[in-house]
Amino acid sequence: MRKKQDRPEEELDLIGIPAIADRTVAAPEDIPETTVKRLPRYFRCLRELFNRDVMKVSSKELSEYTGVSASQLRQDLKYFGGAGQCGYGYNVKRLYSAVSERMGVAKKYTAVMIGAGKLGRSLCESMLFEQRGIWVKGIFDASDDVIGKTVGENTVRNVSELCGFCLENRIDIAVFCIPAADEEELLGIIRGAGIRGIWNFSPCEIAREKAGVPVVNICTGDSLMYLQYEMSKAETEKK
Amino acid sequence: MRKKQDRPEEELDLIGIPAIADRTVAAPEDIPETTVKRLPRYFRCLRELFNRDVMKVSSKELSEYTGVSASQLRQDLKYFGGAGQCGYGYNVKRLYSAVSERMGVAKKYTAVMIGAGKLGRSLCESMLFEQRGIWVKGIFDASDDVIGKTVGENTVRNVSELCGFCLENRIDIAVFCIPAADEEELLGIIRGAGIRGIWNFSPCEIAREKAGVPVVNICTGDSLMYLQYEMSKAETEKK
Repeated sequence: MRKKQDRPEEELDLIGIPAIADRTVAAPEDIPETTVKRLPRYFRCLRELFNRDVMKVSSKELSEYTGVSASQLRQDLKYFGGAGQCGYGYNVKRLYSAVSERMGVAKKYTAVMIGAGKLGRSLCESMLFEQRGIWVKGIFDASDDVIGKTVGENTVRNVSELCGFCLENRIDIAVFCIPAADEEELLGIIRGAGIRGIWNFSPCEIAREKAGVPVVNICTGDSLMYLQYEMSKAETEKK
Repeated sequence: MRKKQDRPEEELDLIGIPAIADRTVAAPEDIPETTVKRLPRYFRCLRELFNRDVMKVSSKELSEYTGVSASQLRQDLKYFGGAGQCGYGYNVKRLYSAVSERMGVAKKYTAVMIGAGKLGRSLCESMLFEQRGIWVKGIFDASDDVIGKTVGENTVRNVSELCGFCLENRIDIAVFCIPAADEEELLGIIRGAGIRGIWNFSPCEIAREKAGVPVVNICTGDSLMYLQYEMSKAETEKK
């Protein structure tokens, strides 16, 4: 495996994402929220096609791969400029580049994990960050049981060092994997650290207005409830 | 901690959810998808209020707790019968009961975890299932390194025993926490096991049509991309 630490920072790019300047890509504020929510799905599919050296793809094929209807898909991808051509299909490289660009995947963000429990370690050792151009530069915990242990390419540090570390290393994203009493407690941990985005797996949600930066709260249990609902509904329909 | 194995099955109820038959609750097919997606949020909030012995709550208060606008919230909660009364607010107990009922939380589903890696163990040991009335009856893996080890209240079994175990124990939900080549491979594992719902953390998505039962696919990375998008957008707006 490539070791990121061995490479100088300017080389830390997303190997494989072609850099194509496309002036016809819509501005972020012009892309509807519903389209944005589907972009990661397109991104994953286009990455797969690009890595398999597929040059073009029709909206029908993309629709099959992504499970999004072909007409919906054409509507969504209109925001990504001249990548599609009637009767020819989409240029995979152009479209992949445009979607990655708009998703901010090409931005080389840095992140710290806060919490080195099972979930924190599991996320840290996954390919989730690297695949999206994010460099996890540190992992922090308050417990002496884990401080000093190795997780992926990092050694767990004391959370008391967090702010200094973030400022020094210009960390963009804080990933919370700790239980907490409330959002005040979570926000207190990163106060003054210059964090620009929060990915929150803690059980208490953080409001964007309170954080002052973009926040994505992951409520894993909500999706389990949604499954329960769908199962319950399916059983009602059978009766 | 209460040990679930020690209790006879009929006692395995969701301690705390009041059973109130409310004939004015809408049928599942009549509740819009957008409302359904917000129900877990209401559920969490109502559970908290109920556990704190709060008897009634106004739509304004509920709105503050959940982050859903008061008018949207009133619209959503209309589907849950006569729990709300103008000028009085909502009866917490009734509303909690109605939402739980419709979400299928009162249904006492059973589940198995497939994959005893970090993520599987982390989920298994969390309160996610118990809080929603789901009993995790088994955890399975293919690796000799983990088979026989203890995770929460379960011992990791060989995945070859899965089908027999599921039929014998009438397992409702399969939770996938393993990497897999494709959905065929995942569906192959549970074929003939009588599974009625799938919560899928594997990197490849499962289509409901292929599975024949409700499926919720968790693409953790998609939410990270969404955060990147929001950060990228926030930076563009600042310029």
